[in-house]
Amino acid sequence: MAQEKIKNIMALSSLTLGKNEQVILDLGDHYVGHFSIDMKSVDSPMDAPLFLHLKFCEIPIELVENSDDYDGLLSKSWLQDEYMHLDTLPQTLELERRYSCRYILLDVIDTSPKWKVQFSNPTFVAQSSADLKKVKPVKTGDKMLDRIDQVGLKTLQDCMQRVFEDGPKRDRRLWLGDLRLQALANYATFDDQNIVRHCLYLFGGLPAEDGRITTNIFTSTEPIPDDTFFYDYGLFFVSTLSDYYEHFKDKQVVDDLYESAKNEIESALQAVNENDLVEFKQDFFVFVDWNMDFDRHTCAQAILIYALRQFISLAKLEDKQEDVLHYQAILNKLITGAKEQLFDSNQGLFWSGEDHEVNIASQVWMVLAHVLSDDDNKKLMDNAIEKLFPVHDIATPYMYHHIVVALFESDHYHDAVKLMKEYWGKMVDGGADTFWESFNPDDPAASPYGSLSINSFCHAWSCTPVFIIRKYITKEYDK
Amino acid sequence: MAQEKIKNIMALSSLTLGKNEQVILDLGDHYVGHFSIDMKSVDSPMDAPLFLHLKFCEIPIELVENSDDYDGLLSKSWLQDEYMHLDTLPQTLELERRYSCRYILLDVIDTSPKWKVQFSNPTFVAQSSADLKKVKPVKTGDKMLDRIDQVGLKTLQDCMQRVFEDGPKRDRRLWLGDLRLQALANYATFDDQNIVRHCLYLFGGLPAEDGRITTNIFTSTEPIPDDTFFYDYGLFFVSTLSDYYEHFKDKQVVDDLYESAKNEIESALQAVNENDLVEFKQDFFVFVDWNMDFDRHTCAQAILIYALRQFISLAKLEDKQEDVLHYQAILNKLITGAKEQLFDSNQGLFWSGEDHEVNIASQVWMVLAHVLSDDDNKKLMDNAIEKLFPVHDIATPYMYHHIVVALFESDHYHDAVKLMKEYWGKMVDGGADTFWESFNPDDPAASPYGSLSINSFCHAWSCTPVFIIRKYITKEYDK
Repeated sequence: MAQEKIKNIMALSSLTLGKNEQVILDLGDHYVGHFSIDMKSVDSPMDAPLFLHLKFCEIPIELVENSDDYDGLLSKSWLQDEYMHLDTLPQTLELERRYSCRYILLDVIDTSPKWKVQFSNPTFVAQSSADLKKVKPVKTGDKMLDRIDQVGLKTLQDCMQRVFEDGPKRDRRLWLGDLRLQALANYATFDDQNIVRHCLYLFGGLPAEDGRITTNIFTSTEPIPDDTFFYDYGLFFVSTLSDYYEHFKDKQVVDDLYESAKNEIESALQAVNENDLVEFKQDFFVFVDWNMDFDRHTCAQAILIYALRQFISLAKLEDKQEDVLHYQAILNKLITGAKEQLFDSNQGLFWSGEDHEVNIASQVWMVLAHVLSDDDNKKLMDNAIEKLFPVHDIATPYMYHHIVVALFESDHYHDAVKLMKEYWGKMVDGGADTFWESFNPDDPAASPYGSLSINSFCHAWSCTPVFIIRKYITKEYDK
Repeated sequence: MAQEKIKNIMALSSLTLGKNEQVILDLGDHYVGHFSIDMKSVDSPMDAPLFLHLKFCEIPIELVENSDDYDGLLSKSWLQDEYMHLDTLPQTLELERRYSCRYILLDVIDTSPKWKVQFSNPTFVAQSSADLKKVKPVKTGDKMLDRIDQVGLKTLQDCMQRVFEDGPKRDRRLWLGDLRLQALANYATFDDQNIVRHCLYLFGGLPAEDGRITTNIFTSTEPIPDDTFFYDYGLFFVSTLSDYYEHFKDKQVVDDLYESAKNEIESALQAVNENDLVEFKQDFFVFVDWNMDFDRHTCAQAILIYALRQFISLAKLEDKQEDVLHYQAILNKLITGAKEQLFDSNQGLFWSGEDHEVNIASQVWMVLAHVLSDDDNKKLMDNAIEKLFPVHDIATPYMYHHIVVALFESDHYHDAVKLMKEYWGKMVDGGADTFWESFNPDDPAASPYGSLSINSFCHAWSCTPVFIIRKYITKEYDK
């Protein structure tokens, strides 16, 4: 498929399209919403229905891929194709479904040899619960950082609908891993309290039968908790609740959800063995990143420490003295276990798993968990930069977020800014209007699902530069 | 595609279908109408839309053909496929469009690996403006003729909607060639006066700019006359008007449409040359049959005589003495011209065109036009049977109708019944629930459009055995 001519949208109604003819509409930016268009037949009377294929695409590569050939891991139903027959024209086609796109392919499968179709008044009604006008653009003095911020803001805006969605194209639902980062990005920008509170109550109010917090909730019907559980995501319920309180000081929500948070901590602690280390059992899954090839034991230990620390602050807030003492003792043991059994003092790095694998994710999460002193944290990250940089084979902006924050938190400002510009900047250079769910600079065509076209190209967990820039660079936001 | 198991429809809701799984519903007979079905998801929560393909088929071969491979002459949009995404379940899918079918394929393109779809309450609301209960089935004493009559009645019923449609699957509109035969079949069975009158007024009221009667009218919007003209179909407006008056004696309609009929005769007479023979000019098209390989000059001459004879009877009815004399003189010249210039007395057959081609259609139409005396008509058909039978390379039940009627009208009862049983009977033996638009016994997979799947398998012009049987066999109907 080649875009033969670029025309002004006002010229659309001067085109007539017959069998196998196509036109691509470019909205000029990424939007989420509903599409309608007027159609009429020209030439002879319409002696057959119009058979029309529409395809809604976030990035140009989706236009080129043929959905019929899709063979990825996720459902083909996520590809934003519509096929429809229109028995009579003129007609205004108003599509009921919501799409996430910048490009709209109008692909005329057939009219008849005797008539063609003419399109006019294409209308895309964009929707979001966030208003970009309310957010002051950053002025970092660095054009690339400013552009990264703009793209990040658009990403966050388009993922803010009735709930925080992970991606408006695919999944379109509330995921805990995304929620935690979206909420932080939101505090620094749109600052919508209601949506975060709403999402927290959904997770707290809809646990699985055994009390565990689900990874995600379906919200387009009556809310339904999914039946999947990630070790890290469950703990991030505690973390999101703690972040929410820190920002809004809204104690009522903590009062209501404290027991849910405690249950989640208890559930996570069941994975701790007699040596005070997290040890995976059969049904444990720790996400961390879409690269599934590195060991996650040490990440899990660090994330447990990270969340438990936040939980203890909630216990103090709730004045649960017994809980404070109980969990503080556990926290100390987890930290000691990590320092004594997982840290390789020769290398100055943490290892992970039985094979003593050294990977970047373990160092990052141990930095974020502040297991070491600030000085030792800085040294740990020095060693990580020396031995594990440049970062490679990390698949998601989600994990890059944690690496960049770990750099800032361990006093590596310039490395942090450099990595952020290299990583998110490379998406910007690649034409991103919104940041992508998955991006491995070493392999830009990679997909966790075996097909690039099923990836979400506006994904919540990728919007975090808007938080990072305001917190660590312009310092206009301090949680 | 193989139908693995045949189950009772009550078992439908016990099936769960995932990616690439299919089930075919069999309505047990051919129907025209609207379909709805309930759907719900089973197993894990629905974590992706349902992507469903439905295909509505009149005969089983349409189920086997892949619509994607269709490459026929007519628009692909006529294939009765629907592709749809359902974002949430449970849901009742109520399809807006009307379908013509016996078989409904539910083809699950994708659910997701985590859930499947379950169907229940499939509902097909059939529609027709004709009530089969009002028609007494014939009892010919011949099981095959009785079955042919049943299938013909179902065909006519399913083509009787707001207007007489040519085929409820494809075209779905009012064609003059079909209307003439449908009206006759209707007089012998359902006997609905309003629908014929309505159709006559549509044609008479919506001529082309030059006054000519169109071949067909689009009726699913405000009525629109098509921009195609067939020599024979135009004349059949006169014929249909005359048949209508003969049956109902409703002179008002003739009063209203006499001038339209006269215009059509005048237009047709422009094709007559100085030798009193129809001579084709560039933009003339004479349909007669979908086999386009035989010469049509003599058919056209005969059809003009046939219609002119009926027009003169209308002129007498309207007491237009001048018209009667004028057109009677022309009729005489056309008959003389035919007998003197087109009849080969050596062979005892009519030839056609410059190459003096002898074909079955010319003999049949000359018999129907009663150009010869009854005795000579009988001899003409004797010669046709001897030299041109068995009939071959005739593509449509429409032309077979005229052959069979010509046999009856020329006193060849047994040959007529034999041919009817051989031809329509072969469709019955092939499992026809309704009679097909096109059927060449020498080449059953043939299509006038280059693809069998685009053929209409319930087609108005094929229903005429219900008229023929009642008029010529049981003689319970006499126009």
